[in-house]
Amino acid sequence: MAEPSLQALVEALRRLPGVGAKSASRMAFHLLQHDREGAHVLSRALEQAARNVRHCSECHTFTEDEVCTTCRSPQRDRTKLCVVETPADQAALERTQAYNGLYFVLMGKLSPLDGIGPRDIGLGKLFARATNGEVQEVILATNFTAEGEATAHVIAEALKQKGLKVTRLARGVPAGSELEYVDLGTIAHALVDRRSR
Amino acid sequence: MAEPSLQALVEALRRLPGVGAKSASRMAFHLLQHDREGAHVLSRALEQAARNVRHCSECHTFTEDEVCTTCRSPQRDRTKLCVVETPADQAALERTQAYNGLYFVLMGKLSPLDGIGPRDIGLGKLFARATNGEVQEVILATNFTAEGEATAHVIAEALKQKGLKVTRLARGVPAGSELEYVDLGTIAHALVDRRSR
Repeated sequence: MAEPSLQALVEALRRLPGVGAKSASRMAFHLLQHDREGAHVLSRALEQAARNVRHCSECHTFTEDEVCTTCRSPQRDRTKLCVVETPADQAALERTQAYNGLYFVLMGKLSPLDGIGPRDIGLGKLFARATNGEVQEVILATNFTAEGEATAHVIAEALKQKGLKVTRLARGVPAGSELEYVDLGTIAHALVDRRSR
Repeated sequence: MAEPSLQALVEALRRLPGVGAKSASRMAFHLLQHDREGAHVLSRALEQAARNVRHCSECHTFTEDEVCTTCRSPQRDRTKLCVVETPADQAALERTQAYNGLYFVLMGKLSPLDGIGPRDIGLGKLFARATNGEVQEVILATNFTAEGEATAHVIAEALKQKGLKVTRLARGVPAGSELEYVDLGTIAHALVDRRSR
């Protein structure tokens, strides 16, 4: 393609995660052929979000204010602090409507191989907040991947030393699943973590 | 998510083809967390492309000028006109380096069920160009789908009545494939369209 602004658009779309050369051209053609209004809308939304969205000074999640609405809310239980990797994980927990405490969003996970250490995910800030006197329980809700588990382990060790109650999301059999089709590691964990009824 | 500009960005990203709610959030989080520069670049690219890119007055493809570089090029064989559905198809043909004629880009295909008729894909303009005296052969390179075939059929019938030579891309066994794994319809077509050597 010889058209510079079309080429620039395809290049720019490729910066989106999961978008390769083919999808990028398809997106560009779609916008230019069927949805120019969409192109303008997306352009403005990108500009505005990049300008306005920053990190909550308390919990690190995305917000447009100094402190996010969750951290400001008087309805929230300030004795519980749930640690998640990303705002998407936070949103998933919120959708369950089963948690009414506060959050701390790491915006990443410990990953020494990628050069991501404790400072990059704001562990110092997390420790400061967890020991502010209000928080009584820290719930670790990092992902159940190797890196998420390692991150949870590091945080748990540090906070237990400070005398805080630290819990981790339960591992077990997913709701609605049949044992026959659940992987063995999950069943083994569900056995170890079995509950009395 | 309560943040309006983040929500607006996710909504806007969902206008891209093939992007659902989950990918849209993932894209938004990625840009805000790891690539704000990318957000600005994409915003500008969208704005510029939506403003500058229009259709070539000759062949209908995307261009920033009145007439695209291909149509303007003195090196092109003006006796051949290749009809394709989209600029992406045109780009695929160009990459083969096996064609040196001109193009007409329909920017769509006949699709009565979707209400896309001859006028929407500029058939009047195509017929005018094909009968401009210069063009001696029209090569139909619409897709080999039901709608692409129907579009090719309609164009072929109309142009043959005007006394033009009309050809269609060959159907046959793809390069590098083993007959055992080629679908039967394709083998049947390859038999019917067999060539003497």
